[in-house]
Formats: sequence, structure tokens, C-alpha cells
Amino acid sequence: MSAQPGPRQGYHHGDLRSALLDAGLRLLRARSVDDLSLRELAREVGVSAAAIYRHFPDKNALMAALAVEGLERLGQAQRRAMRAAGGGKAGFLASGMAYVRFAVDHPALFRLVYSAAQQCDPLDAQLDSVSSALRGLRQDIEALMPADAPPAERKAAALHAWALVHGLAQLMLDGQIPIDWRLVERVLSRVSLD
Amino acid sequence: MSAQPGPRQGYHHGDLRSALLDAGLRLLRARSVDDLSLRELAREVGVSAAAIYRHFPDKNALMAALAVEGLERLGQAQRRAMRAAGGGKAGFLASGMAYVRFAVDHPALFRLVYSAAQQCDPLDAQLDSVSSALRGLRQDIEALMPADAPPAERKAAALHAWALVHGLAQLMLDGQIPIDWRLVERVLSRVSLD
Repeated sequence: MSAQPGPRQGYHHGDLRSALLDAGLRLLRARSVDDLSLRELAREVGVSAAAIYRHFPDKNALMAALAVEGLERLGQAQRRAMRAAGGGKAGFLASGMAYVRFAVDHPALFRLVYSAAQQCDPLDAQLDSVSSALRGLRQDIEALMPADAPPAERKAAALHAWALVHGLAQLMLDGQIPIDWRLVERVLSRVSLD
Repeated sequence: MSAQPGPRQGYHHGDLRSALLDAGLRLLRARSVDDLSLRELAREVGVSAAAIYRHFPDKNALMAALAVEGLERLGQAQRRAMRAAGGGKAGFLASGMAYVRFAVDHPALFRLVYSAAQQCDPLDAQLDSVSSALRGLRQDIEALMPADAPPAERKAAALHAWALVHGLAQLMLDGQIPIDWRLVERVLSRVSLD
């Protein structure tokens, strides 16, 4: 392994890509997707705009990659929370809280994930990876349901859990409900896993 | 009462306001809020742009009025569905289905309602009426819960119902889940009202 390059120096191909994604996610914490430009991202990472275009031909390509990266981090946060709570009902609760918390902590990224998925063109492999990541998230939720339940009930239970945390997240992001974690926990406790 | 004026003729003050709202809601069924202009609305109703400005000084004022009108129609649709189903658990189910159906039938209006509420400035009486209408909707949901439940549980149960239908609606509008009414019904049936 060569020494880690500092900022404003040369990047190895893969290093620059992940540095750009890190910087993109960092910038998205403070501003909306519309306010983020490739030029600003280049400045942030200390490379030329031309260097960015080798990885992301346009802003849409960067946004799709950020959406995939965001979904992976969301999934990791949920799985980490579930494991820490020891699985089962407590794990479901922790995983749901992690979903809502992720949305509140990364509002622009959370909105980006869903708007990127909406624009998915099945012919576009990069955008399609957003859908795959979302499918993974759905399967994680279904895995929480009892294995012996009829498929239609498993599906309904998984959608119940997903729609509920998604609705809570959206209502919080739209300023409709306060960010009250005790209330969120009380709401999620009402969900039956059978 | 004077005779109803036809289009492209003179309107009484209140008639023009409601004709503008009707036309605005109609136009929003086919396009996004960004694609709707006061000029187009004037053309649709057959009046001059100046006539519109007497009711709505700018596009934001029109959008706030459309959001309030949209919320009232959403509330009516839910109450009608609840009554038709005879109240109780069946009424809750019908009311929840009506919420999701409204979002699917009026995607731009549904999104407008929540973005208008988000931009609410408490000093602006017109935008504040969006919040009041949303408060009314929340109270309608709370009224479904058993009156003898502890207040914290009532609040959690009402939020559970609201977040769930809101999440289902958003996931459908974002193309994440199919528009499958049987599945929606199965999901809503899982909610306990106690």
C-alpha cells in the first residue's frame, strides 16, 4: 500500500471516488441537493472539476452514487442498532428508531435517496443500484418477521414497519411533528411483529 | 342571487376566488406546482392576470389557498369514508384508505399541502390557516381513539395511524411500492385502536 495522499495532492482512482462521496455526504448535511455543485465539491476535495468528471460525468451520476452510499449507511445504522439491542422486538424498535434518526440527521440525503430511486431508469446501471439498495433495505425488514407467517402477512407486516418509520421521518422533516424520541418509541412499540 | 356568470364574463368577487381555486386544483391534477403559473390560471378561468392579483398577490398566496382547500377536501373525503363504513374499526380503515387514495389521486396537491405547511410563517395569517387545517386533520384521527385511554397512549395511537397512512402515501408517490389497495387494507388492519 502506498502512503495515504493528503488533500490537494494526487489521488489514486478509488481514493478520489470515495473522497468525493465523503465530501458530498458532508456537504449534504448542511445544504439541499439543489445547492450542491460539482464545482464546489471539487474545491472541497482540492481537485480540478475535470478530475471529478472522470468519476461522475454529471451531477445526476454523483447524486445516484451518493444515494447508494446513503442507503448503505442507513442499512448499516439499522443493522448496528438491531444487533446492539439484541434482536427480536427490542431490535425491531432500535432499527426503526435508527431509520427515523438517520432521516433527521441527514435530511437532504434522505430526500435524495427517495427522489433518486423515483427517477430510476432500468437501463441505467448506476441508477438501478439505488433500487437494489432499497430492495436490500426491504429484505432486512422482512427478515425481522416470524418465518412461519403466511407470505401475504409477512409482506403486510414488513410494509407496516417500513411505511410507519418512513411516515414518521417525513412528518418530522416537514415540521409536522416534533422530534420527540420518547413519542417515536411509544409509537413503534405499538407495532406487532406477528 | 344573480345568474351564474359563464366563463370569460364578469365574476362576483367570491365567485372568481372559488373559480380560481377550482381551476388551480384541476390544473394540479396534471402537473407539478412548479409548472403552474398565475398567467396560465388566468387563461384557464378566462380573466386577466390583474384580476387574479386582486385575490392572490403572488403565487405563494395562491398555493397556500390551494393547500387549505386541498386539506379541506382531504378531511371531507376521510369523514365521508368513515361515515359510509359505519365508524369504529371499519371506519378507521376506510378513513385511512381515503387518505392514501387522496394522495395517489392528487399527487401535486398532496405534496403541496405538506410543503406549504413547512413554510408556514406564524405571522402570515393565510399560511397559518394551512396549519389550522392540518391540526383539524390530526384531531379527526385522535377522535377515533378510545376516549378512556391515557392521553400519552391516545397521542401515540393517533400518530401511529397518521404516520402509517402518510408513509404509505409517500412510498406510493415515490414509486417505492405498488398501488395495491388490498395490501394497503391488510396493512391498515394490523393497527390496533386501543
